[in-house]
Amino acid sequence: MTEVPQPPHKRRAHTSTRDLERYAGLFAERTTVMRSSAMRDLMAVTARPEVISLAGGLPDTSTFPPERLAAQMSKIAAQSTAAALQYGPTEGFDETKDCIVEVMAAEGMLPDPDDIVVTTGGQQAIDLVTKTLVDPGDVVICEAPTYPGAVPVFCSYQADVRQVEMDGDGMRIDLLEALLAELKAEGRRPKFIYTVPSFQNPGGVTLSLERRARLVEIARRHEILVVEDNPYGMLRYEGEALPPLYQLDGGDFVIYLGTFSKILSPGIRLGWVVAPPPVLEKVVLGKGATDLCTSTLTQFFVRQYFAEGGWKRYVEDLVDLYRGRRDTMLAALAEHFPAEATWTEPEGGLFIWATLPEYIDTGDLLAKALRSDVAFVPGQAAYVDGRGKNSMRLNFSGVDDEEIREGIGRIGRVIREQVELYEALAPGSSSGAPGREAEGVTADAGREAEDVPVEDVAGNVVPLRKEANG
Amino acid sequence: MTEVPQPPHKRRAHTSTRDLERYAGLFAERTTVMRSSAMRDLMAVTARPEVISLAGGLPDTSTFPPERLAAQMSKIAAQSTAAALQYGPTEGFDETKDCIVEVMAAEGMLPDPDDIVVTTGGQQAIDLVTKTLVDPGDVVICEAPTYPGAVPVFCSYQADVRQVEMDGDGMRIDLLEALLAELKAEGRRPKFIYTVPSFQNPGGVTLSLERRARLVEIARRHEILVVEDNPYGMLRYEGEALPPLYQLDGGDFVIYLGTFSKILSPGIRLGWVVAPPPVLEKVVLGKGATDLCTSTLTQFFVRQYFAEGGWKRYVEDLVDLYRGRRDTMLAALAEHFPAEATWTEPEGGLFIWATLPEYIDTGDLLAKALRSDVAFVPGQAAYVDGRGKNSMRLNFSGVDDEEIREGIGRIGRVIREQVELYEALAPGSSSGAPGREAEGVTADAGREAEDVPVEDVAGNVVPLRKEANG
Repeated sequence: MTEVPQPPHKRRAHTSTRDLERYAGLFAERTTVMRSSAMRDLMAVTARPEVISLAGGLPDTSTFPPERLAAQMSKIAAQSTAAALQYGPTEGFDETKDCIVEVMAAEGMLPDPDDIVVTTGGQQAIDLVTKTLVDPGDVVICEAPTYPGAVPVFCSYQADVRQVEMDGDGMRIDLLEALLAELKAEGRRPKFIYTVPSFQNPGGVTLSLERRARLVEIARRHEILVVEDNPYGMLRYEGEALPPLYQLDGGDFVIYLGTFSKILSPGIRLGWVVAPPPVLEKVVLGKGATDLCTSTLTQFFVRQYFAEGGWKRYVEDLVDLYRGRRDTMLAALAEHFPAEATWTEPEGGLFIWATLPEYIDTGDLLAKALRSDVAFVPGQAAYVDGRGKNSMRLNFSGVDDEEIREGIGRIGRVIREQVELYEALAPGSSSGAPGREAEGVTADAGREAEDVPVEDVAGNVVPLRKEANG
Repeated sequence: MTEVPQPPHKRRAHTSTRDLERYAGLFAERTTVMRSSAMRDLMAVTARPEVISLAGGLPDTSTFPPERLAAQMSKIAAQSTAAALQYGPTEGFDETKDCIVEVMAAEGMLPDPDDIVVTTGGQQAIDLVTKTLVDPGDVVICEAPTYPGAVPVFCSYQADVRQVEMDGDGMRIDLLEALLAELKAEGRRPKFIYTVPSFQNPGGVTLSLERRARLVEIARRHEILVVEDNPYGMLRYEGEALPPLYQLDGGDFVIYLGTFSKILSPGIRLGWVVAPPPVLEKVVLGKGATDLCTSTLTQFFVRQYFAEGGWKRYVEDLVDLYRGRRDTMLAALAEHFPAEATWTEPEGGLFIWATLPEYIDTGDLLAKALRSDVAFVPGQAAYVDGRGKNSMRLNFSGVDDEEIREGIGRIGRVIREQVELYEALAPGSSSGAPGREAEGVTADAGREAEDVPVEDVAGNVVPLRKEANG
C-alpha cells in the first residue's frame, strides 16, 4: 500500500471568494445566462407556514383521496412490484401512452401513440424540445409575458427569445406576422413559436378561435414549428372549449406538450411530448441522455388510476373548486386593489395577471409583501428582457378562499401604501390606466419596454432560494 | 366565429422523405452528434420474453418484497397524500438528503446535506454536471471503455471526449498524466475527469488505492474537477472496501454522483450530485430548468423505506445474490468461451467485460446472438471513437443462474462459429491474447485504436429501438 492522504472525515468549510474564483473558469458559457425562475426562488419563503403564497402554480392535491392512493399502490405492489421498481423504456410505457391518448381525446385530439414520448413532467417536455431544436443564438418566439418556467430553459440553450405582445384574445397574430417578416428580412428562421394558448400562464388569457386558425395557417405557410403547451386546457370554468392547435393542425407543424400535473399530480413528474416522427426521434435520444426513462413507479400509478376510471370526475371536481377560488380572487381584487390596478379575468387555468401603475416595481413590492407574509410572482420573471416590472402573477388554485381574500387584502395594502407614497411625492400624477379590466394584458409593460435595457437576463429576479413549479 | 380549418380527426400518415427534409433544417447542431446508447436500442429486442438479456444493467428488483412496497405506500397515503402528490423543492427534500447522507456514510463519506441535490436518477446527475461545465469543444476525460450511458451525454454537449486506457487496477494514471501534459501544451484545460472507480461500468475493474490517491493528488495540483460516479460501490463481493475519491479529497475537487438505482430501485429515478457550493448552485439552476424537481412521490417512498430501517440488509442480500451470479457467469465463460477470449473478474458491480480476437466485430456478433435469443452490449458503445469493436459488456445481475449459463452458452457458440470460420479461411492465424485473464481490460482495443477513424460518433451501434439503463 502507498501513502494515501488521510480522509478528512469532517465537513468542508463553505464557499470563500477563493473557491468561487477556482470554479468560475470551469463553468459553461450557458451558465452565464441561466437564471432561476422566480418561483424556485420563492419556495423557501413560501414554505414558511405563516406565508400565504399566491406565487406558486400548485394544484390543490389535498382533494385527492388518500384511500385511492393507498388502494392503487397496494394493487401495484400485489401485481407488479418487480416491474414497478425496474427501468422502463425511454419513450415511456405503452400503457402510459394509452392514458395520454385518453386525456387528449377528451380535448378532441387523436394522436398516434407512436408519436408520444412520456417525460419527467411538462417542464422536461419544454427542455427536450428546446434541446432538439435550438442552437445558441437561434430565435425562439413566445408570448409576452411567457411561462416563467420556460424563460430559464430558453436561456440555458442560449436562444434569442422574441416575445410577442398579447391582448385579451391571446398572442397578437398581427404582431407575430410583423416579427416573422422582420426576421425573414434578416434571413433568420425562428426555430419554433412557443405558446400556451389556453388560460395562459401567466397572462390568464386564451387565444381566440380565429387567432388559433391564423396561427396554424402561418405555421404551415412558413413551415415553422409551433410548440403548444397545454397544461390547463381541461380546467375551463366558463365559456366554450376551443380546439387545441394540435387538433387544428393535425400534428404536422404543432408539437404538443401535455402533463398530468394539473389534472392529477405534479409530484409524480409525468408529462409528454407529441411530435412528428423525425422530431420525436431526436427528442427520445435527448431524453435517453438526460434521464434514461421516466419513473416506472409513477407511470404504474397513472396506469392504475386510469384503469379504475373516474379521472374525468376528479378533473370536474377540480374545475368546480378552482372556479370558486377564481371568483373569490376576482372579488378580492375588486375590493382590495386600488383603482390604478388592472387584471385579467381568466376563463380557466390557475392564474390572474395584474398590472399596476408604472411607477411600482413588483420586485420591490414583493419584498414588502413578504414582510406581510404574502407572496406573488413579479412580472419580470415572465420576460427575458426586464419588462413586466409593474405586473404580477397571482395564483388562485393552491390556497383556499379565506387565504385568497386575506392574501389579496395584504397585497392590496402594500400597493396602496406605494400609491399613496407616490401621490404624496408627485401630487396630481396618476397612472394612465384607470379602468378595472385590462384591455391588453401587457399594455403597460409593452409601452415601457423601449425604456428598459435588454441585457438584464442574467440577474435573478428575487435573491432567495428553493423552488416549485409554475 | 371565423372560418376554421376542419380538425382532421384522423391520425397523420407517417414519415416520408419529404417530412424528414422539412424538419432536418430545424434541428440543433448537437443532434448531429447525439446517438443512442446501445442499451436503449436493445430494449425492444430484449423485451421479447424468449431473449436472455445480458445487455442491460438491471438490478434484480424481483427480490423486493411486495408487502413492503404496499405497506410503505399505505403509510404515505395515510399520513401525507397531499404533500406526496405536490411539487417539491428543486434540490430535493431534506429528508431525502438525510437518506443520501446515510448511504454515503456507509461508504465512509460525510457530505454536508447542503452540498447535495437530488436528481432524477444517476443519469440526470451526469447530464446536469455536464450541462454546468461543458461548452462545445471542451475536453472531458474518461476511461476507455467508459459507461455507455455517459457517451450520449458528452456527445449531446458536443464535448471533445478523451478516453484513458485502463488495466486491472483501473484508469492508468500514467497515461492520464501524459494526456494532461499534452493538453497543457495545447493550452487546453479539461473541464473534468469522469470516472467510475469501483467495479467500473463496463470494464468491471476497480481503481486501486494507490491510483485513487494519485488521481486526487493530480486533481488538486492541476485544479481539475473529478466527477466520481459510484452507483455500485456497495455491491462488493470480495476484497476490502476502498475509500471513494470524494472521501480522499474531502469534496473540493471531486464531484460525487450517487443513485438509489442499484441499492433499491431504478424505477423510482432517484440519484444525487454532491458538489462544492459554487458548482452546486449552477447544477440546481440547470435542474430547475430541466424538470423543476425530482418526483415527490418517489422521494417520500425512499424516506419511508429508510425510516423503517433494514436498507443495508437488503443491500447485503443483493450482494449475496449477485456474488453467486458473478461466479456462475465466470464459470460459464470458462466453459463456453473459446481460448482466444479474455475477460475481467470483477470484485463487485454488475458487469464483466470480455475481449475477443480482433477479427470479431461484436456488433455483427450481436445480430447473430439475437437470432439465438441472447443479447449483450457491443463494446463500441463504450467508446466515442469506434474502438471496442471486438469486446462486449456482459451483465450478471438481471438474470438468474440458469439463464446466465444458457446465455453465455449461446454467445459462446456464436463466437466459436466465428472463430472456426476465421480459422478455416486463414489457417494458422490466431489471436495474440491466449490467456484467460485479461491483463489490460482494453489492451486489444487500445492497440487497434490508431487504425480506427475517429469520426464514427454519429453512427448508431445497433439499429433497433427502445431502451433501458446501463
